[in-house]
Amino acid sequence: MTTARRPGRRPGNPGTRAAVLSAARAAFAERGFDGATIRAIATAAGVDPALVHHYFGSKDKLFLAAVEAPVDPEQLLPQVLAAGPDRLGESVVGMLLRVWDGPARPAGLALVRSAVGNEWTARLLREFLVSQVLRRVVGTLDLPPAEAEARGALVASQLIGVVMTRYVLEVEPLASAPAEELVAALAPTVQRYLTGEVALPGRRA
Amino acid sequence: MTTARRPGRRPGNPGTRAAVLSAARAAFAERGFDGATIRAIATAAGVDPALVHHYFGSKDKLFLAAVEAPVDPEQLLPQVLAAGPDRLGESVVGMLLRVWDGPARPAGLALVRSAVGNEWTARLLREFLVSQVLRRVVGTLDLPPAEAEARGALVASQLIGVVMTRYVLEVEPLASAPAEELVAALAPTVQRYLTGEVALPGRRA
Repeated sequence: MTTARRPGRRPGNPGTRAAVLSAARAAFAERGFDGATIRAIATAAGVDPALVHHYFGSKDKLFLAAVEAPVDPEQLLPQVLAAGPDRLGESVVGMLLRVWDGPARPAGLALVRSAVGNEWTARLLREFLVSQVLRRVVGTLDLPPAEAEARGALVASQLIGVVMTRYVLEVEPLASAPAEELVAALAPTVQRYLTGEVALPGRRA
Repeated sequence: MTTARRPGRRPGNPGTRAAVLSAARAAFAERGFDGATIRAIATAAGVDPALVHHYFGSKDKLFLAAVEAPVDPEQLLPQVLAAGPDRLGESVVGMLLRVWDGPARPAGLALVRSAVGNEWTARLLREFLVSQVLRRVVGTLDLPPAEAEARGALVASQLIGVVMTRYVLEVEPLASAPAEELVAALAPTVQRYLTGEVALPGRRA
């Protein structure tokens, strides 16, 4: 049944859809999530911007389709934020492990493998992390932009490291430990990066 | 001049050397660093174990040659340990960044890229981390084996995450921040994993 065409939001010529996604990947990799526009992507694909909106709904959704994201972080956000800012570290690590311990893992691994081997895909994964995950989570803390960026990047450094050690390199005991034990060990780190005392690093030209 | 044959420790038939390195990669990936033996590697390569010792010196050195490690962690260890256990987090992060900000970066990136795309190379990178880096650093703390393993793996999760965010995905501000700012931000995390209060995760069968 998985091969059946889905009704509703995804009609239209499959060739057009593929052209839009291909143009979107190029635009997001070249200009980043913020720099890319639906108008420019539509032009590159030779279609009307209204058709892109019709197919994909929003720039966020177009981006998720372009990178074949196994989950939509926006849908997981309410659950992550429910416990409040003082337990954000715990809920972020918990959500990461629930997603990766679940059916999304193969797609997640494919994305990481592709990102590490290919500079373009690396940029797409970075844009996914920054625009779809970190900005949403850190955005709830009401911080100055440079501080939000730095805290988000530090969070990313620990989360990507967990993915690499647990799922890619399978370093024990992280590879086989129950998720709740990893949450207990890692949450204080992520919480410190989000809301604690940190000597924040800054960009250099 | 880089193509000139080096005198001294690496004489012998290049074909034999290549056969030993190939057998070593297979053995280390299949059985891990501890499980592989120079005797079995020599047998698989069709040479005398004494010749392997003569070419490479020790199992550690054979392993480093087999994975084409850009640095020998053993040589860096005295510098890392010099500041004492209370500043180990700082000196570990500082050394990681000195190595990766230096001429070893391309080789390091090649190793990570290969590890992420290939299960065999992933095992070799894991064995490199565990046997050549973590065990040496954590080994100086005189901990029970399960605790040493867990603390080492947590350290690995943060260090690999830094490599991924700074050098592979280039997430700002981690990509361009001066090394000393990253050390200030990350050292408390690594220090906690090494010597601080942590709810340690454990292996599951």
